[in-house]
Amino acid sequence: MAHIDLGLDEQAHPGINGLARYRPETAKPLFDLADTLLHAPHPTLTAGERELIAAYVSELNACTFCCASHSAFAAAQLPAGMPLVEQVRRDLDGAPVDPKLRALLRIAGAVQRGGREVTAELVEAARAEGATDLEIHDTVLIAAAFCMYNRYVDGLGTLAPADPAGYTRAAEHIVAHGYGAR
Amino acid sequence: MAHIDLGLDEQAHPGINGLARYRPETAKPLFDLADTLLHAPHPTLTAGERELIAAYVSELNACTFCCASHSAFAAAQLPAGMPLVEQVRRDLDGAPVDPKLRALLRIAGAVQRGGREVTAELVEAARAEGATDLEIHDTVLIAAAFCMYNRYVDGLGTLAPADPAGYTRAAEHIVAHGYGAR
Repeated sequence: MAHIDLGLDEQAHPGINGLARYRPETAKPLFDLADTLLHAPHPTLTAGERELIAAYVSELNACTFCCASHSAFAAAQLPAGMPLVEQVRRDLDGAPVDPKLRALLRIAGAVQRGGREVTAELVEAARAEGATDLEIHDTVLIAAAFCMYNRYVDGLGTLAPADPAGYTRAAEHIVAHGYGAR
Repeated sequence: MAHIDLGLDEQAHPGINGLARYRPETAKPLFDLADTLLHAPHPTLTAGERELIAAYVSELNACTFCCASHSAFAAAQLPAGMPLVEQVRRDLDGAPVDPKLRALLRIAGAVQRGGREVTAELVEAARAEGATDLEIHDTVLIAAAFCMYNRYVDGLGTLAPADPAGYTRAAEHIVAHGYGAR
């Protein structure tokens, strides 16, 4: 049960969904940000790649709800599906992702530890693999944003369903409609 | 110098301001969220109290730009001004804040360490001092949001001016207009 009374059935509105109904004023910019970062068209990063960054950071923050959600959203939009998502979460160095995406995920991991952990060397390594300024910017902001979403969802003690079916259903909605249409 | 080319004079647009000009699509929800959390009318928490939570978390994250900014914004809106802000940043337990605000700041400090650090005991302690569900919700989200803003600003290596005059000028703008009018 959440730390505060959300005034709703938490089973029906787990994780951030119950918080969004409790406080729609803050939900609007939170979902607008997620939609811009993860779902809106991007010149070079696919939605699947961006969701993978979100899932990876959520794993590092041990946020069960966000990690299950964004793993499902990434898997639904990446050709290699859930096996790749799980490999990246378990062992980034050994996972079969392209070198540029691996370098971006290393930047995301640094952001998770703290902003000052992003070194010029990590940025140069990504650039050497072809990463653009916009990709580096968006990677840092996606990782930073999930340091917020993860803390929001867990800091208020919301429910994270164990059944994977709910996350799969949510993925269908997100892939089709993004984060805005709620 | 920032890790990416922002295409502008960083001295004139330090911290998050240069990032906002570089990527206006993400700046919009980021500033909308800050405005709702910190500047919009709130039934019980003053803007100064909410800015104090932002400054305290930014201190814990060692984010020079955000801490200087939100300390100035808090000082401009709290009767006890900058001396109180500096006391809270230096020694929360000894600072002369009312017990409810101290309990909320302790929750914010837990969020900074991680979402799962917010215990039922910390929430009960705040409730025992009169904190409402909305105050607890907003404290958790302000603290979580500054774990994002701090990482965004430092993760991209933006400039934090040493001269306090710029932060004081920014405070005048924020107090008068909030975060939306940019």
